[in-house]
Amino acid sequence: MAGGTRVLTVELGERSYPIYIGSGLIEETGKKFAEHGFPVKSPILLITDSAVEGLYAERVEISLRALGYTVSRAVVPSGESSKSLEMLDVLVEQALKAGLDRKSTVIALGGGVVGDLAGFVAASYMRGVRFVQIPTTILAHDSSVGGKVAVNHRLAKNIIGAFHQPEFVLYDLNTLASLPAREVKAGLSEVIKHGLIWNEDFVAWCDENAEKLLGLEPDALGYALYEGCKVKSTVVSRDERENDLRAILNLGHTIGHALEAVAGYGQLLHGEAIAIGMVGAARLAAKFGYSADIAETTERIFRKFGLPVRIPDDCATDEIMGAMLHDKKFAEGKMVFVVPTSIGSVEIRNDVPSAWVTEIVDGLREGKSQS
Amino acid sequence: MAGGTRVLTVELGERSYPIYIGSGLIEETGKKFAEHGFPVKSPILLITDSAVEGLYAERVEISLRALGYTVSRAVVPSGESSKSLEMLDVLVEQALKAGLDRKSTVIALGGGVVGDLAGFVAASYMRGVRFVQIPTTILAHDSSVGGKVAVNHRLAKNIIGAFHQPEFVLYDLNTLASLPAREVKAGLSEVIKHGLIWNEDFVAWCDENAEKLLGLEPDALGYALYEGCKVKSTVVSRDERENDLRAILNLGHTIGHALEAVAGYGQLLHGEAIAIGMVGAARLAAKFGYSADIAETTERIFRKFGLPVRIPDDCATDEIMGAMLHDKKFAEGKMVFVVPTSIGSVEIRNDVPSAWVTEIVDGLREGKSQS
Repeated sequence: MAGGTRVLTVELGERSYPIYIGSGLIEETGKKFAEHGFPVKSPILLITDSAVEGLYAERVEISLRALGYTVSRAVVPSGESSKSLEMLDVLVEQALKAGLDRKSTVIALGGGVVGDLAGFVAASYMRGVRFVQIPTTILAHDSSVGGKVAVNHRLAKNIIGAFHQPEFVLYDLNTLASLPAREVKAGLSEVIKHGLIWNEDFVAWCDENAEKLLGLEPDALGYALYEGCKVKSTVVSRDERENDLRAILNLGHTIGHALEAVAGYGQLLHGEAIAIGMVGAARLAAKFGYSADIAETTERIFRKFGLPVRIPDDCATDEIMGAMLHDKKFAEGKMVFVVPTSIGSVEIRNDVPSAWVTEIVDGLREGKSQS
Repeated sequence: MAGGTRVLTVELGERSYPIYIGSGLIEETGKKFAEHGFPVKSPILLITDSAVEGLYAERVEISLRALGYTVSRAVVPSGESSKSLEMLDVLVEQALKAGLDRKSTVIALGGGVVGDLAGFVAASYMRGVRFVQIPTTILAHDSSVGGKVAVNHRLAKNIIGAFHQPEFVLYDLNTLASLPAREVKAGLSEVIKHGLIWNEDFVAWCDENAEKLLGLEPDALGYALYEGCKVKSTVVSRDERENDLRAILNLGHTIGHALEAVAGYGQLLHGEAIAIGMVGAARLAAKFGYSADIAETTERIFRKFGLPVRIPDDCATDEIMGAMLHDKKFAEGKMVFVVPTSIGSVEIRNDVPSAWVTEIVDGLREGKSQS
């Protein structure tokens, strides 16, 4: 692992795009726009949120203006509630007033919320303009691959959206230094998830390098993000529109989503909820006759990264089961789970008895050892 | 031209789809769903407007239910104002409550407004579900080819949208019998437009068969819609994302859009405004040295179809010019026009002096003969 910028290409035919991962890339935004042949005449809209704006927006703009680009800034309140049709309306108005044309670009500067929202603006403004992502969280390594963009409806999350691939992703490791420690851990949970579904060696590497990763050591972090993006990219390349294979990316999400809903969004971070969910899925593997070592290793690694591996006491089992039964991932009344078959590989089971799930959820209480 | 159902395939690779044109097709909706392999388990949302609902909605639903499909009805107020993000929000709520899943279908039953709105619901609900169009106007033959769907923003028409191709289009000629005579003529204006840009023989055929078309004689109408859709389909197949060629479809639209804006939307029907615009474009052809016969033929045919060929007195020339200069079709300050080079062929000119346009707009006043 040498230093410097890593480049990963997400292979999607004519929609293929590179992810640049390295330190100091924000200062190269303008240069990257020029390299990719974006016309200087077409104005750019930079969408960011109130938490990120003060840290990085100006640096992105300065870099673009130095290369002759015109850029306007739109700032949305930080948090999930900005992913709304009302905010889409506001941002389209800003795009119109800034004079964005069909060759213009929308930039998402921020985490997953900004990426989803700005991506849907880019997907729908004039029926689709260029999109560039500058993620500022570890978790966003996940949403920066695959082109899934969306806003929420008050009745359902991510229900209004599109598949809209970015032209490129600029992952500046320096921006991750400003993350709170809890968000670092929760972001690494998704990184490890990518190893657990596809790459045993990478899981072993994460295990050995936990300290470096938690300390945001740039080269280790760059390598981990590269490998995490690579797994997702491989899966997405084979199934862009989420017909089958892409579902394996939901490891830990069945229980995880239910925990998020029951605990109240924001109580458990997404990466924390799916860490608990992955331990649950690993215990399910033992029920299907796979090695009990899977659950043991999964739990040990997440503990090493300071992630929760038990369900909070205030989340009742029947509420969690109820939330899961309402989750759209249950087709035709059966319970569907992504189940590990070893460290680094999974299968999708649609024959999971709900009694097993209840038992596992119950067994994931604080103070209880493995069931 | 035999009777019976005509089938035109819009060639778009894996997004190719058929347009069925014939009499009594609404009663075959369920059968067509089954033929296309749509799953009966996934609920359907039928979107229509208050003007069309009472005429045809029940017949569509009966046909679907007879084949075992579940269908819910959503009715929006008739008119352009329904193409809004607010209506998208309402329709997504109805889709959720009706239990639409990722294998569900959204049907647009109605004219262009319903097609654009329902198409954007289909494009964005769960990031895209199946879409079927059942057009009930002649004008909708145009929007049923090409997959352009959108809603309006209060600052700009069709600014929020997508390219989302239908699975198939069911064009029941019987539904056209309920159209007011003025809308029949305005719809035929777009049909003739397709001849003017691409097919001289078809223009001659329209000329000879004006009476049959205005009388809605089914076989003539079926043939005309087939040929009109075929031209558009040929153009769209070569340029799905509207990069270059597709712009020729805007013949008559530069002056036409300006007239619609200045006259106030709804005063001039779209087909009427572009008829005047096509006469203007044909006069521009003479300025570039092409035959004056083009303008003469264009005007004569539109008169034969009872369409306006002169600008209403209350639309001032400077207002029309102002509206044109604000139109997004003027790239980089130059005036861009689709100009006929003969009947049945056009070219795109981006070097049109505004003085010529002013002169032609002035010359298109009532009582003035050809300039």
